[in-house]
Amino acid sequence: MASNIKKIALLTGGGDCPGLNAVIRAVTRTAILKYGYEVVGYKFGYRGLYNNDLIPLDLDKVSGIEHRGGTILYSSNKDNLFDYQVEENGKIVKKDVSDVGVENLKKEGIDVLVVIGGDGTLTSARDFSRKGVKVIGVPKTIDNDLAATDVTFGFNTAIEVATDALDRLHTTAESHHRVMLLEVMGRNAGWIALHSGLAGSADVILLPEIPYDINKIAEKIKDREKSGKLFSIIVVAEGAKSKDGEVVVSKIVEDSPDPIRLGGIANKLAFDLEKIVKDHEIRSTVLGHVQRGGNTSTYDRVLSTRYGVAAADLIHDENFGNMVCLKGNEISYVKLENVIGHNKNVDPNGELVRTARSIGISFGD
Amino acid sequence: MASNIKKIALLTGGGDCPGLNAVIRAVTRTAILKYGYEVVGYKFGYRGLYNNDLIPLDLDKVSGIEHRGGTILYSSNKDNLFDYQVEENGKIVKKDVSDVGVENLKKEGIDVLVVIGGDGTLTSARDFSRKGVKVIGVPKTIDNDLAATDVTFGFNTAIEVATDALDRLHTTAESHHRVMLLEVMGRNAGWIALHSGLAGSADVILLPEIPYDINKIAEKIKDREKSGKLFSIIVVAEGAKSKDGEVVVSKIVEDSPDPIRLGGIANKLAFDLEKIVKDHEIRSTVLGHVQRGGNTSTYDRVLSTRYGVAAADLIHDENFGNMVCLKGNEISYVKLENVIGHNKNVDPNGELVRTARSIGISFGD
Amino acid sequence: MASNIKKIALLTGGGDCPGLNAVIRAVTRTAILKYGYEVVGYKFGYRGLYNNDLIPLDLDKVSGIEHRGGTILYSSNKDNLFDYQVEENGKIVKKDVSDVGVENLKKEGIDVLVVIGGDGTLTSARDFSRKGVKVIGVPKTIDNDLAATDVTFGFNTAIEVATDALDRLHTTAESHHRVMLLEVMGRNAGWIALHSGLAGSADVILLPEIPYDINKIAEKIKDREKSGKLFSIIVVAEGAKSKDGEVVVSKIVEDSPDPIRLGGIANKLAFDLEKIVKDHEIRSTVLGHVQRGGNTSTYDRVLSTRYGVAAADLIHDENFGNMVCLKGNEISYVKLENVIGHNKNVDPNGELVRTARSIGISFGD
Amino acid sequence: MASNIKKIALLTGGGDCPGLNAVIRAVTRTAILKYGYEVVGYKFGYRGLYNNDLIPLDLDKVSGIEHRGGTILYSSNKDNLFDYQVEENGKIVKKDVSDVGVENLKKEGIDVLVVIGGDGTLTSARDFSRKGVKVIGVPKTIDNDLAATDVTFGFNTAIEVATDALDRLHTTAESHHRVMLLEVMGRNAGWIALHSGLAGSADVILLPEIPYDINKIAEKIKDREKSGKLFSIIVVAEGAKSKDGEVVVSKIVEDSPDPIRLGGIANKLAFDLEKIVKDHEIRSTVLGHVQRGGNTSTYDRVLSTRYGVAAADLIHDENFGNMVCLKGNEISYVKLENVIGHNKNVDPNGELVRTARSIGISFGD
Repeated sequence: MASNIKKIALLTGGGDCPGLNAVIRAVTRTAILKYGYEVVGYKFGYRGLYNNDLIPLDLDKVSGIEHRGGTILYSSNKDNLFDYQVEENGKIVKKDVSDVGVENLKKEGIDVLVVIGGDGTLTSARDFSRKGVKVIGVPKTIDNDLAATDVTFGFNTAIEVATDALDRLHTTAESHHRVMLLEVMGRNAGWIALHSGLAGSADVILLPEIPYDINKIAEKIKDREKSGKLFSIIVVAEGAKSKDGEVVVSKIVEDSPDPIRLGGIANKLAFDLEKIVKDHEIRSTVLGHVQRGGNTSTYDRVLSTRYGVAAADLIHDENFGNMVCLKGNEISYVKLENVIGHNKNVDPNGELVRTARSIGISFGD
Repeated sequence: MASNIKKIALLTGGGDCPGLNAVIRAVTRTAILKYGYEVVGYKFGYRGLYNNDLIPLDLDKVSGIEHRGGTILYSSNKDNLFDYQVEENGKIVKKDVSDVGVENLKKEGIDVLVVIGGDGTLTSARDFSRKGVKVIGVPKTIDNDLAATDVTFGFNTAIEVATDALDRLHTTAESHHRVMLLEVMGRNAGWIALHSGLAGSADVILLPEIPYDINKIAEKIKDREKSGKLFSIIVVAEGAKSKDGEVVVSKIVEDSPDPIRLGGIANKLAFDLEKIVKDHEIRSTVLGHVQRGGNTSTYDRVLSTRYGVAAADLIHDENFGNMVCLKGNEISYVKLENVIGHNKNVDPNGELVRTARSIGISFGD
Repeated sequence: MASNIKKIALLTGGGDCPGLNAVIRAVTRTAILKYGYEVVGYKFGYRGLYNNDLIPLDLDKVSGIEHRGGTILYSSNKDNLFDYQVEENGKIVKKDVSDVGVENLKKEGIDVLVVIGGDGTLTSARDFSRKGVKVIGVPKTIDNDLAATDVTFGFNTAIEVATDALDRLHTTAESHHRVMLLEVMGRNAGWIALHSGLAGSADVILLPEIPYDINKIAEKIKDREKSGKLFSIIVVAEGAKSKDGEVVVSKIVEDSPDPIRLGGIANKLAFDLEKIVKDHEIRSTVLGHVQRGGNTSTYDRVLSTRYGVAAADLIHDENFGNMVCLKGNEISYVKLENVIGHNKNVDPNGELVRTARSIGISFGD
Repeated sequence: MASNIKKIALLTGGGDCPGLNAVIRAVTRTAILKYGYEVVGYKFGYRGLYNNDLIPLDLDKVSGIEHRGGTILYSSNKDNLFDYQVEENGKIVKKDVSDVGVENLKKEGIDVLVVIGGDGTLTSARDFSRKGVKVIGVPKTIDNDLAATDVTFGFNTAIEVATDALDRLHTTAESHHRVMLLEVMGRNAGWIALHSGLAGSADVILLPEIPYDINKIAEKIKDREKSGKLFSIIVVAEGAKSKDGEVVVSKIVEDSPDPIRLGGIANKLAFDLEKIVKDHEIRSTVLGHVQRGGNTSTYDRVLSTRYGVAAADLIHDENFGNMVCLKGNEISYVKLENVIGHNKNVDPNGELVRTARSIGISFGD
């Protein structure tokens, strides 16, 4: 049976993530080599779809990009064509311009749109699917907090970067008998903090899912002291919360539009802890965007490549409206309709948290 | 209910593997902190059990070892107490000395033996279990070829090392228009070659599971040439076989006791390929033991820690004769009786091989 | 001629630095293997000398430490026995307790004291030398700002960590068309910022030695925009200063005892730049202590080992009161009397700055 | 004064080396941004000059290449236009075709040729200079054995790769009480073996400059055994020679055109050592081309950039016939006439070898 598909388009949306280029490469190579499709890429996610800003993707274009972080298609964080900011009569208004996107696809003769992105980007993918566009989704979140798939690419690279930082902080902490805090990504889900804390021999891990009591952290530090360990390592997710619900960064950055950037919970926590744990120097580091760029880990390259090939296969099978996913060790897919809004948080009573507690890690609770 | 367990012993057997120390640390910490057991370690695997050569393991002893490759308990490759080489009346004979091991455990008051090892080591673990010893197994194989568990620690570190080598070979290959071969571990199973080949943008992957035809490899090189790619990267598992069953290293190393070491399939293949593909320089590298040592990857540290805690929990639950394992994302366990002799090979028609073929990778078949 | 030296002591002072352990190992091995000395180490720098808190150093003790950051002798930042904080009659007072140190050396039969440290630590070394103690100095500063030696260990490791961070930030910056700031160490000297900026393809480098004008930075960003480069990378030394002498972190952290920690110049600069460069997102990362720990680079291990052996050789030659140093490619030594107070800053008109300007890097001036 | 220079060409010759791209980038950016020259690059070294096979180099072309190993201009190993292999009347003959190169430069209006290469490539550069071509040389040798400069780029990256391999072998050697051999590059000069051996805590280092006696190596292994160290690490340069001048690989590879590739001295040495040191397993690894590719180290990026800018500055100063070099910490230049044929070998009595001996490293002599 001859396929009805002739031409497909890719776009990447949301924050960048190691593995995006490996997905782009795998979709493109499979589409061209295995199925003979023409492939193009929209630049800057949906904004490119709106502006019909696209580039052809061929074997040369995707050569040598598998290991590179970032996305050769660029990305934008907030562009939603169903609620898009446009200028109208000299005023900035928000309106649904998704029809423009649909028209552009038609105009270019694009049969299928492959959307690589997180929750927000995939919501639009679902909405385009509802409008009749043939869509395939590929999940992307460095925080690994999408419920519809077991693992997302980028996460493994992020925990390697965070663990490497913890390894480095260890030798300094030990030499100076210091308490070192490392703030890692994770506004809503603490997976990066939990995994890197387990791998990096942290003594305390603070997660959004397990509110902490600063006095319990101080207790842990003192307990270690009593057992002859005069240093401690604390990993804190950027979204970690104290039990009394204190908004930790409020006072310091009151005139800032983005409290996380000027300060960071790790800095505030170091400041507060030092008042309680008086005989230790306390130092903090905010890893920030270093966690989401650079060389893609081996694990993430393999996973991204599998996702990309699976996406192209779904196109060939004309099985649209789905997102590829990993279930256990198996690549599978799930309806986009069932993906949105289902986040995966660390289970405070789950195996990983119990594992951490078993080897003596405190969650400050 | 008070536990009957007071004292446990650990041993590591077989080739070393990144993650062994993380398992030792996790078992020891959980045993001491959570369950209050006394912990000792036998040195050099079963040989230490035979000689009753043991050291106490406490929190200090396992401090700072999570990230380090190797094993603080040392290991030996071939010692099987059920068929052990001993001197008797001036002659070297093989006999079953497992009773000595059982006696030593009794003498030391050791209630449970935790055995960390691969197929051979776990076979003995099962046999000790059959003799009434309370045994817990932890799977170890850098080749990831144990059927009873989805992933073994050490494998992720090995593919990172192999992929890093491929990344390095790429720039040289490209600059000089060379064909570069990299020989990686995998005598019976090609998982390391397959994963690192996928991650390292290999053009050809040669596995024990898919016999190759050297002319097909040459064809692939020439096809790439035609499309303007004047270099090629080949990953070859040390156990890769040609279709005509040729024992590839025979002539070169006929007077050697260990053909793999003097030569290596990659060297022979480079030699033979150069005769066919005349206009390319061909170079080979045999990674060897570099793949199994050094810093343990983040993924392997987390997995090893989960295994170690799970082993200690099985002891507490008095659930003996089992091996911990990973099923999908879940830690579980399986009867040692069902573990032995079930290897997991690359499926020539499985998803991973199809993924590789989809993006244009040849298996030389 | 029989040597008069029988026993030597080592101590490490000031902030830790990759390479300290390699120096300790090299001094100890040379002293024992080549010269037959007994070796001990004072813990926590001069504080250990005051408290006579020492440990024997033998071949086992220094085995396997060459690559590890930190110091097995621990360190303290501020202890100066010539102006030491003690309790007297219930009050905290500062007094010269250096005689206690001299007495302790005598009591232990220590003939020579090897002091590994920076400006402050070496000042005390000189002062002990003036009091008749046989002293050898080994220079340590991660900032590479000691005039008496061409290169100090730890610096190469620090610039590798900073450059790796820049590499990671690049892919994110490029994908999102962002401006990324990375704050690196360097309160008084900008060597780390300058070298990592050169190696990490920075667009702007801000140093303590070249005051910047924020409008010039904005100009550079806009110039790049015009040439089609919609992202920029800025490296900023923690001691960078604006031309109008603004104390950049003042307002944000007025109630903090340590302005650098809560905030950081990169955070403030990002905040201010965003007001000027309106159409770019600007993100900042403060690398902090991640730069001074962890695995020691190859270069630093070799340099540290050379320093350590040279220090032991100076002892054998009874050539005291000197500090080992590197001049060009040669290991040499210099009088401790001539070391103190001579810092080495980046020359705003020197070859390295001109090199950076030649390839288009702006210093914001 | 207006410069007479309008257009320059670059070429890279000989084996590739991390840093080549950083040189190309620095020359190109400086030439364009600072001096306004037009820049082109010949592909495949002198072969491209002969075939007039060139590409324009602009800012875009050299963007994002600083960290990448290899050379975007490609390289060839053996093409010498003064003794070039051509077909004439159906026969392959060697003849001087350098005039073709000179003509091509004229035809393209190229005023200056920048030649980046090692001894052979620079010899031709000198010879073109003698023919009146305006030439600037940039030294390249991964072995660091050019006498005319203190350090060449690529060397630092190579010793980092070799040291990382040694670190990995250590944990395996220690766990199994093995002797591990690592063969590194260095046919004539042992700098890579010496530096990586010092940094990687080797027990024995074998260099071309210090012939070894296999019995002395065995002795060292046994001495370590007596002191409780049951493993040993040996680094061997590919050009290491035994005292009796044995051509170590002869028997094994008698039918091979390239003895080094099939076998390697490390493999042969392991084979021979095992006969003498009977109670140890001995394993060998040949690092090969992994040492010369991949990500360029921070040190090498800075050095390459300095060389590139200095080369462009020499052009502007119309100071031709020179090669840029590093003397101590200073960038300088030297007449090409004085460069050729002056190699720099490890001094068996120099400071580095004495340093190694002082900490107990054996050279097998």
